[in-house]
Amino acid sequence: MYVTREQATATCLAAMETGHVTFAALGEAVGRHPVWAAAAVHGQATMTADEAMKAVALLQVDDDVAAALQRIPTKGSDRDVPVDPLLYRFHEINQAFGAAMKSVIHEMFGDGIMSAVDFEVDIQKIADPKGDRVQVTYNGKFLPYRKF
Amino acid sequence: MYVTREQATATCLAAMETGHVTFAALGEAVGRHPVWAAAAVHGQATMTADEAMKAVALLQVDDDVAAALQRIPTKGSDRDVPVDPLLYRFHEINQAFGAAMKSVIHEMFGDGIMSAVDFEVDIQKIADPKGDRVQVTYNGKFLPYRKF
Amino acid sequence: MYVTREQATATCLAAMETGHVTFAALGEAVGRHPVWAAAAVHGQATMTADEAMKAVALLQVDDDVAAALQRIPTKGSDRDVPVDPLLYRFHEINQAFGAAMKSVIHEMFGDGIMSAVDFEVDIQKIADPKGDRVQVTYNGKFLPYRKF
Amino acid sequence: MYVTREQATATCLAAMETGHVTFAALGEAVGRHPVWAAAAVHGQATMTADEAMKAVALLQVDDDVAAALQRIPTKGSDRDVPVDPLLYRFHEINQAFGAAMKSVIHEMFGDGIMSAVDFEVDIQKIADPKGDRVQVTYNGKFLPYRKF
Amino acid sequence: MYVTREQATATCLAAMETGHVTFAALGEAVGRHPVWAAAAVHGQATMTADEAMKAVALLQVDDDVAAALQRIPTKGSDRDVPVDPLLYRFHEINQAFGAAMKSVIHEMFGDGIMSAVDFEVDIQKIADPKGDRVQVTYNGKFLPYRKF
Amino acid sequence: MYVTREQATATCLAAMETGHVTFAALGEAVGRHPVWAAAAVHGQATMTADEAMKAVALLQVDDDVAAALQRIPTKGSDRDVPVDPLLYRFHEINQAFGAAMKSVIHEMFGDGIMSAVDFEVDIQKIADPKGDRVQVTYNGKFLPYRKF
Amino acid sequence: MYVTREQATATCLAAMETGHVTFAALGEAVGRHPVWAAAAVHGQATMTADEAMKAVALLQVDDDVAAALQRIPTKGSDRDVPVDPLLYRFHEINQAFGAAMKSVIHEMFGDGIMSAVDFEVDIQKIADPKGDRVQVTYNGKFLPYRKF
Amino acid sequence: MYVTREQATATCLAAMETGHVTFAALGEAVGRHPVWAAAAVHGQATMTADEAMKAVALLQVDDDVAAALQRIPTKGSDRDVPVDPLLYRFHEINQAFGAAMKSVIHEMFGDGIMSAVDFEVDIQKIADPKGDRVQVTYNGKFLPYRKF
Amino acid sequence: MYVTREQATATCLAAMETGHVTFAALGEAVGRHPVWAAAAVHGQATMTADEAMKAVALLQVDDDVAAALQRIPTKGSDRDVPVDPLLYRFHEINQAFGAAMKSVIHEMFGDGIMSAVDFEVDIQKIADPKGDRVQVTYNGKFLPYRKF
Amino acid sequence: MYVTREQATATCLAAMETGHVTFAALGEAVGRHPVWAAAAVHGQATMTADEAMKAVALLQVDDDVAAALQRIPTKGSDRDVPVDPLLYRFHEINQAFGAAMKSVIHEMFGDGIMSAVDFEVDIQKIADPKGDRVQVTYNGKFLPYRKF
Repeated sequence: MYVTREQATATCLAAMETGHVTFAALGEAVGRHPVWAAAAVHGQATMTADEAMKAVALLQVDDDVAAALQRIPTKGSDRDVPVDPLLYRFHEINQAFGAAMKSVIHEMFGDGIMSAVDFEVDIQKIADPKGDRVQVTYNGKFLPYRKF
Repeated sequence: MYVTREQATATCLAAMETGHVTFAALGEAVGRHPVWAAAAVHGQATMTADEAMKAVALLQVDDDVAAALQRIPTKGSDRDVPVDPLLYRFHEINQAFGAAMKSVIHEMFGDGIMSAVDFEVDIQKIADPKGDRVQVTYNGKFLPYRKF
Repeated sequence: MYVTREQATATCLAAMETGHVTFAALGEAVGRHPVWAAAAVHGQATMTADEAMKAVALLQVDDDVAAALQRIPTKGSDRDVPVDPLLYRFHEINQAFGAAMKSVIHEMFGDGIMSAVDFEVDIQKIADPKGDRVQVTYNGKFLPYRKF
Repeated sequence: MYVTREQATATCLAAMETGHVTFAALGEAVGRHPVWAAAAVHGQATMTADEAMKAVALLQVDDDVAAALQRIPTKGSDRDVPVDPLLYRFHEINQAFGAAMKSVIHEMFGDGIMSAVDFEVDIQKIADPKGDRVQVTYNGKFLPYRKF
Repeated sequence: MYVTREQATATCLAAMETGHVTFAALGEAVGRHPVWAAAAVHGQATMTADEAMKAVALLQVDDDVAAALQRIPTKGSDRDVPVDPLLYRFHEINQAFGAAMKSVIHEMFGDGIMSAVDFEVDIQKIADPKGDRVQVTYNGKFLPYRKF
Repeated sequence: MYVTREQATATCLAAMETGHVTFAALGEAVGRHPVWAAAAVHGQATMTADEAMKAVALLQVDDDVAAALQRIPTKGSDRDVPVDPLLYRFHEINQAFGAAMKSVIHEMFGDGIMSAVDFEVDIQKIADPKGDRVQVTYNGKFLPYRKF
Repeated sequence: MYVTREQATATCLAAMETGHVTFAALGEAVGRHPVWAAAAVHGQATMTADEAMKAVALLQVDDDVAAALQRIPTKGSDRDVPVDPLLYRFHEINQAFGAAMKSVIHEMFGDGIMSAVDFEVDIQKIADPKGDRVQVTYNGKFLPYRKF
Repeated sequence: MYVTREQATATCLAAMETGHVTFAALGEAVGRHPVWAAAAVHGQATMTADEAMKAVALLQVDDDVAAALQRIPTKGSDRDVPVDPLLYRFHEINQAFGAAMKSVIHEMFGDGIMSAVDFEVDIQKIADPKGDRVQVTYNGKFLPYRKF
Repeated sequence: MYVTREQATATCLAAMETGHVTFAALGEAVGRHPVWAAAAVHGQATMTADEAMKAVALLQVDDDVAAALQRIPTKGSDRDVPVDPLLYRFHEINQAFGAAMKSVIHEMFGDGIMSAVDFEVDIQKIADPKGDRVQVTYNGKFLPYRKF
Repeated sequence: MYVTREQATATCLAAMETGHVTFAALGEAVGRHPVWAAAAVHGQATMTADEAMKAVALLQVDDDVAAALQRIPTKGSDRDVPVDPLLYRFHEINQAFGAAMKSVIHEMFGDGIMSAVDFEVDIQKIADPKGDRVQVTYNGKFLPYRKF
């Protein structure tokens, strides 16, 4: 049976909750970072056949889900401005620090962008007696503007 | 003369270009990270009197600008979804990786958010033979939801 | 059977109407404030296993609903500007008194925000011969901006 | 000279900064709560002639400003969803707790609304060893729906 | 069976068409104005148990519909600006005459609003040889702004 | 000098405030209802030369304003959904009672609309011991849909 | 069975395709212009009982569809700005020629509008060796603004 | 002096009012239809040097305006959905009759569009004892979709 | 059975994945460019009966799908600004290079547009040692504005 | 004097019109493609000091304009969906052919995007007896998604 990308996301998330599978475990199973594994489950990245088979094996879901996980998705989310508070804080960072980051990146690199495609994310927990801290690291290739 | 926050931003940016002052230099002069200094210039952070005086001294702008730099600003930018390509990539990261980051942060920390207020940013250039990379690090306190 | 957060909300609200269960009673059953209990039912807060089991017991709904009530939700509502008159009045308060509250909070606390996460709400009925009054109290931690 | 409401706001805010006048002091001068005084300065409430004259006397601004402060304003702000983080938190509270507050208010009062017109706001600083807290209290008349 | 507010609206409208029941008749049956009866059917007002039982009796629909008609609804419509021509004309009146009505109401009553909650509507057909006219009368309590 | 419609509005409103001229007085001077006079001042209706000359005479403003008052304006306001509370209540009435009014008008008149062009408004103060009431009366020609 | 307006539209369009019935034929069958017949099928105009019975007879669809075709619809479409290229061209005409048409109509008729209710449309194919042309004719009653 | 397109529009409209020049007269002077002449004045069409010189001669405005009238404009208007009632009726026609016109044009011509570029508009006054009528005729080349 | 355009798209895409049919192969089968074939599958272009029969034969889907593929679609997509990164880059090109392309096309061709109807697209892979390149070629008829 | 990017654009465009300088000539003068030169003038690309000096020399504008042309701009345009017909056609192409281009590019290249930064545009006039054609060629590096 043909499984859509949305159905695959729902099926995987339900299976993870029922089977007590974490994204850390899923990432390890498919040989990828937990954030990338979560992105693939949420329909934002494309698994190889091998990765998809390992995922459905771990999650004990139907093999047809594996076909969906290998399909190149239409990426992005429905809302331009998220309302979930955790997601909104990332939006707020762009609102408040976007111009500053643009100024500093141009000062360090010249005219161009940080790629969001040749790009990776890492998340760490930093223990702190005043309260643990979330450390998110973006690492993207600098792409200078081509002149023609 | 009363200087608005918008005028202060324009005046400082013009003075930086004319005087060849970088955000790195401005940050050093006020004793802050270049990104924070850029945020203050762009009207997103509040300088102390001491920081503001050092800034106007370096930039050789009118002392009235210092009053503006100490005024608590109305933060944020005009556009919900930025169109500048560098800024848009940060928006696209939220669109594509937002759900994944939410899933992984909740998995690591439970229900709560990464603060965008008790928060700092760092930007580094990572040399790479295939093309230099931009590394952006967010560091924010984890705030668990209060139950009542 | 896997129950989504939306289904859990609908099931609980229907059970409350059918069983004549108030949010006051639900809050008492789970050991929380009625507003927090209502927020959890509406998919805006996360119950512990213990709280969720007490809730489904009181409401006499399926145990699978308890799993949904423990799942960290994607919070927020569909409409940026609510149209329901009761909800709109809270929006109108922000429109009319937002700038005043910002000015006064900054005057009392400096640059920073009132947290909406380390935060609680209380609602009381104030008897008044000219017509009862609604008293809503917000209590949130002040978070000063971190400098870096 | 005719002074617009927008000019009156800007003139008063500049005079308060230059003259080191707080909203607490302004409220005391006009015999009102600091939040109401701030609302009047921000163009959201209407002063009487007496209040307006006391305000311009304290702020040492032109008498024409007093006429503007007595003019019934077109209230509200430009943005439906604020981007300033302090203002946004009040919006987020509505997003997350709006449905819960609606449920609980209806449970306590029946069908109707909390008035945003026959309404007042108070803000207090609550000292707390883990960090001071902001307490905001809304007090509005309950208006039941009229049947006809 | 639990009937949602949307299902109750659809069921009642279908029953009215099939049974040739007008809003005039429905209003008479429940002891209310036809406009209020129509508002209740459209999910914008709350019936008492007595009114709801009379309504379902007249419409010959299931008793579970009566429970829905007594539930306090989330009011309002999906579209901010209606596209149906009859509805749009009311919007256009606000666009064209809103500022004039605001000016004249403030001139007659001072700063405050016409309540939309302590409020009623009447509609009459005014015979006119050049073409009948629709007369719509709004009657709402004037609420002056509370000072504090 | 050529006076724009926006300038004419601002000039007239300032002159009314300075000269203590009410819309009631202006309406009487030009031989029209105060609401129509206010609409003309706000750039929503077109005066004849005679009406315009009487208006500028009463307001003691420049004759060039009279030319502007005779120019057919581009009508309507900038915001689709008003934020001023008085204006918003009229919008809320449409949101809550729009469908009911549509149903009842169609029941009384068949398919068609109430004209917003062959249309007039009246506003009255209704004394009431529980608080004065605002009565707004719309009177528009019913236009049936033409079949072809 | 109760048939909604949306179901009636879908049913009729499918029947027209299957039965090779054109809007020209449908218009002829119901005694109306093909554009009006198409508007009725698309839920934008109301048929009489006689017209509806002729339509369902021609289309060989269920009689319940006839009830839907006689129901006064909520008119208009979901998108403010259409994206279908044929529909968009009509929007573009308004964008580019709207101000010109407003100027010329006011010059010819004075202040008022062309009714969209007492209104009809005709479409003709104009043969042209350089490519056939579409001729669309709007014919609406001029409604002058009522003064009051 | 360089005159922008917006300044040229304002200058021409003021000159037409002052000099009592109609679009009919302007069209005749430049050898074009009044609607086209109005479109050119409103910044939606491009005059030749000859047309522009005739226009500025008739309007007795500065020769620099002629350069602006020959500049290819950025066409269209600021608002997607117009609020002026005359302009809105054209929008409403698209909302209500758009789908019908699309259906009938495809039935008559196949898949393609009516060009809004190889296109012209005419407006006539049709005398009618029940009230004059506005007749607007669009005439655009049919462009079939190219297959490739 | 009547198959909607949306169902036809979903059925064809599923069949292509299951049957390992590429758009290159589909284009060849129907005698069209792969981009045109993809547009037809995505509901943006209309197949002839012959093309549609060849398509369903290759894809081994139901013949009723062929009827859908011959139906003239309502074209366009739901989102004005796409969020999928590949699609967004095309939007970004318009944002950044739109004004430049408009300037250069007008310089080369005069006032008019590149048709999006008498139009075709080609896509090629350009091998490059520094990374393959995507070459997209648009070819549309220039349409000069008609004067009237 | 400090010249903003917007002033530089306006100054250059006016100088080009006055001095009869084409983008072809400007491109040649600065050693770039006319489209790139136009993008730089429109504030979408960054000139080197050498390019900027050549540009101001050709255009005979103030040297301060050269500083503006070397400043890295905030790119993009004000409107998400353009209304100018030439610009809109590019938007319409994305609406109609976007999904097809995404499908075909993924089929040819796998998951990734065509860069809009390492990217160039060319525009040619293709003579055609049935009407000249505009040929626009995009050439951007394919960027595959990085896995991590």
